[in-house]
Amino acid sequence: MQAVMRSSGTKMIMRSFTTRRAIKDVLNAAPETQVSIAGWVKSIRRQKNVSFVTLNDGSSFQSLQIVCDSTDGLDKVSVGSSVQANGRVAQAPKSGQVEIHADHVKLYGECDATTYPLSKKYHTLEFVREHLHLRPRTNTFGALTRVRNALSQGLHSYFQSNEFVQVHTPILTSNDCEGAGEQFRVERESTDGKKSDPFFGLPAYLTVSGQLHAEMYACAMSKVYTFGPTFRAENSNTTRHLAEFWMVEPEMAFAGLPECMASAQGAVQHAIQHAFDRCGEDLEFFHAQHAKSHKKELLKQLENILGQETFPHLTYTEAIDVLKKAPVTFELAPEWGMDLKTEHERYLAEQYVNGPVFVTDYPAALKAFYMRLNENEPEDRQTVAGMDLLVPTVGELVGGSVREDRLEVLQAKMASAGIDANGLEWYLDLRRYGSVPHAGWGMGFERLVLFATGMDNIRDVIPVPRYPGACKH
Amino acid sequence: MQAVMRSSGTKMIMRSFTTRRAIKDVLNAAPETQVSIAGWVKSIRRQKNVSFVTLNDGSSFQSLQIVCDSTDGLDKVSVGSSVQANGRVAQAPKSGQVEIHADHVKLYGECDATTYPLSKKYHTLEFVREHLHLRPRTNTFGALTRVRNALSQGLHSYFQSNEFVQVHTPILTSNDCEGAGEQFRVERESTDGKKSDPFFGLPAYLTVSGQLHAEMYACAMSKVYTFGPTFRAENSNTTRHLAEFWMVEPEMAFAGLPECMASAQGAVQHAIQHAFDRCGEDLEFFHAQHAKSHKKELLKQLENILGQETFPHLTYTEAIDVLKKAPVTFELAPEWGMDLKTEHERYLAEQYVNGPVFVTDYPAALKAFYMRLNENEPEDRQTVAGMDLLVPTVGELVGGSVREDRLEVLQAKMASAGIDANGLEWYLDLRRYGSVPHAGWGMGFERLVLFATGMDNIRDVIPVPRYPGACKH
Repeated sequence: MQAVMRSSGTKMIMRSFTTRRAIKDVLNAAPETQVSIAGWVKSIRRQKNVSFVTLNDGSSFQSLQIVCDSTDGLDKVSVGSSVQANGRVAQAPKSGQVEIHADHVKLYGECDATTYPLSKKYHTLEFVREHLHLRPRTNTFGALTRVRNALSQGLHSYFQSNEFVQVHTPILTSNDCEGAGEQFRVERESTDGKKSDPFFGLPAYLTVSGQLHAEMYACAMSKVYTFGPTFRAENSNTTRHLAEFWMVEPEMAFAGLPECMASAQGAVQHAIQHAFDRCGEDLEFFHAQHAKSHKKELLKQLENILGQETFPHLTYTEAIDVLKKAPVTFELAPEWGMDLKTEHERYLAEQYVNGPVFVTDYPAALKAFYMRLNENEPEDRQTVAGMDLLVPTVGELVGGSVREDRLEVLQAKMASAGIDANGLEWYLDLRRYGSVPHAGWGMGFERLVLFATGMDNIRDVIPVPRYPGACKH
Repeated sequence: MQAVMRSSGTKMIMRSFTTRRAIKDVLNAAPETQVSIAGWVKSIRRQKNVSFVTLNDGSSFQSLQIVCDSTDGLDKVSVGSSVQANGRVAQAPKSGQVEIHADHVKLYGECDATTYPLSKKYHTLEFVREHLHLRPRTNTFGALTRVRNALSQGLHSYFQSNEFVQVHTPILTSNDCEGAGEQFRVERESTDGKKSDPFFGLPAYLTVSGQLHAEMYACAMSKVYTFGPTFRAENSNTTRHLAEFWMVEPEMAFAGLPECMASAQGAVQHAIQHAFDRCGEDLEFFHAQHAKSHKKELLKQLENILGQETFPHLTYTEAIDVLKKAPVTFELAPEWGMDLKTEHERYLAEQYVNGPVFVTDYPAALKAFYMRLNENEPEDRQTVAGMDLLVPTVGELVGGSVREDRLEVLQAKMASAGIDANGLEWYLDLRRYGSVPHAGWGMGFERLVLFATGMDNIRDVIPVPRYPGACKH
């Protein structure tokens, strides 16, 4: 047996065997260290004897300058081409920054400047959006990719360190959690192009929320969360809507609104802290980008989130009072019973509080069937134990509630909402057998990325956006 | 403003404000500590003066015994009902284990023993599978949920500590990565039930793999991974197939087969180590469950994985030689050019190596269009730089390859495979503009859970399984 096995000398941790070093690491390496790096050319400046190539490999915002011999086969190197360079670390004479004095540069892939869409130094977001597959190479989208990753890991880290169990709830489902009827239908395509019998025996849809299935697991594991893609077949061509987006949805047994608010605050704070720790340079870039806009206080806004012991909290009824007394004219005049619009949410977060604010206990008529009815209220002022977290610039960041855990109340609410209990008997069973008070919330993950980066268009903060007409890439 | 704000005293880390403690923590608490716990009743034994209630809250495999006054309103408490108990930690007289001497037990939700499906002490997996929504409360599915979570986090932890960036690749796609034509079609359902114009302007499907989009980001960020749901509309009613399952797919620029093998080994080892660290008790339970089966060496098998410096490695050609010389009769006789079947893969992993083994460099005719052609080979022995990781009991755990980075070679392969380049111009662009050698792999996450737990049926290792006929829950 021994004879046919190869010993490739690999180790458990990859870094120990690959010779290429990330530019992020090299930027902190000691002078004279011999390194091998690789990446894509951001710029090239040719002089008679030496040439200067700026290289980025996606590991950090900052690129690395390579000083190399002009005769070293550089004639085919241009912006966008990929190269490998071996050399030693040195301090750049003027800037004092790290650069590489290369003894060899190898061209991997050329990049024809006459056809390469991103050969210019600056492109608008609209232009770059048309070249989705190349945009990760730009400063903005490289930074967005790293920040998105850090925020995502920050959320995992928060939930895992607080003993939540991640549950991969299903994408394919036969029920409509929100009852909005804006679902995508899924079918097996038969080879002859005709419709076949339903693959699942009944119509199947793409999920709009993992909540109901998260409840299934919370009613056994106590604290769970789901973090995955969700879908809306809404024909909206706006900067705020996507047909496919990511949601994080924790669900907690033996919990009420206080646990809901505390965990929403904790998760948002932890995620932003994680982004600061891992991608400070990227956040500073976004801050600088917005220097001339109304978001010029981006970093201050984020630090304000981190610094708070407890986010302010208003009930819906209190919020309506505040809005009525507000020294501004809203398009829609505030009145008890109405749904808060973005103008109201932003007034509360931006003008009234100037930071994050919880609004709870909404009119029952506005909210989904699964939210728990508050007790001892007059019928015309009936509220549910729902909760929203509003933040500046974005508006609603988190929405959650205590869930209706009383079987008869839930059945009555489903009946009056016209929801067929047939497909949800399993959901009712959770109330039949060992029902528990439980609560949870959901956060559209792209909204957190918008908030943390100050970007305006949701299509820019997801790697490959899907919206009406957009599924080519 | 101050007047309308409530101070709920919440903290960034949830644990500090909720009074309920996880049973997992209480099991290690010091005697005399006052605690409040809650969970679902596993068993109840009533005596004249005191009663013994065993409670589980999903935080650990082990349940906690509560000793309480028989007059303390326990008449409606039964298996499956939910209770809260306040009391002090004590040592059980005989076992020496921790128990709670309760001064108060509160019933949250009753559970009618005459209708509760899980009221018996033992149920078969087949029976429990019919009660999906309640099965997380059983020992086996509680343990599976925790192990799955730990394996998932172990993978994240491996990639993040090796500087891979997670990319949420899209679920909705217009291309078919594997070209197998087993995709689910997605359409917006119009309100009148009739077909409307395609929402995305062209037919859209559920992804079978995130690889192509992972390549999009690797060709800018260098090291990325995607970890999300993937779909196959295969009409297979087996213990090995699901219509919806999770895949983890890393992709690395400036990398070849050595990096592929090293990262696959590292990720599998890291994930299993993480499961040992977080859920040792759960793994011991599975080990004990298999004591009488052919998998009785479960823990040894896992430790064997962890202990290896470098997994053994055979080329496909070497593997065929080994199979030809094997002292067993295969259903399909080994011959160069044939696809390895499960019987061959398991022979290599179980009999020949008795552990994990890489097989690389498969015949080109067997593999997908995107795998890189090896150079300088005779036409009838043409291979690609593909890689599979085979393990005992499961067979193929990981499949990967170097990707074809040469534009003309890729175009020729697509043409001969009958793949329409029209929808994949963006993929070809990655080879037109700064093409780089790159490689990656995919692991069906449920296969890792099967391997780590020794479970037999893939429907048991995903929270809510989807297969032909199964989408009710």
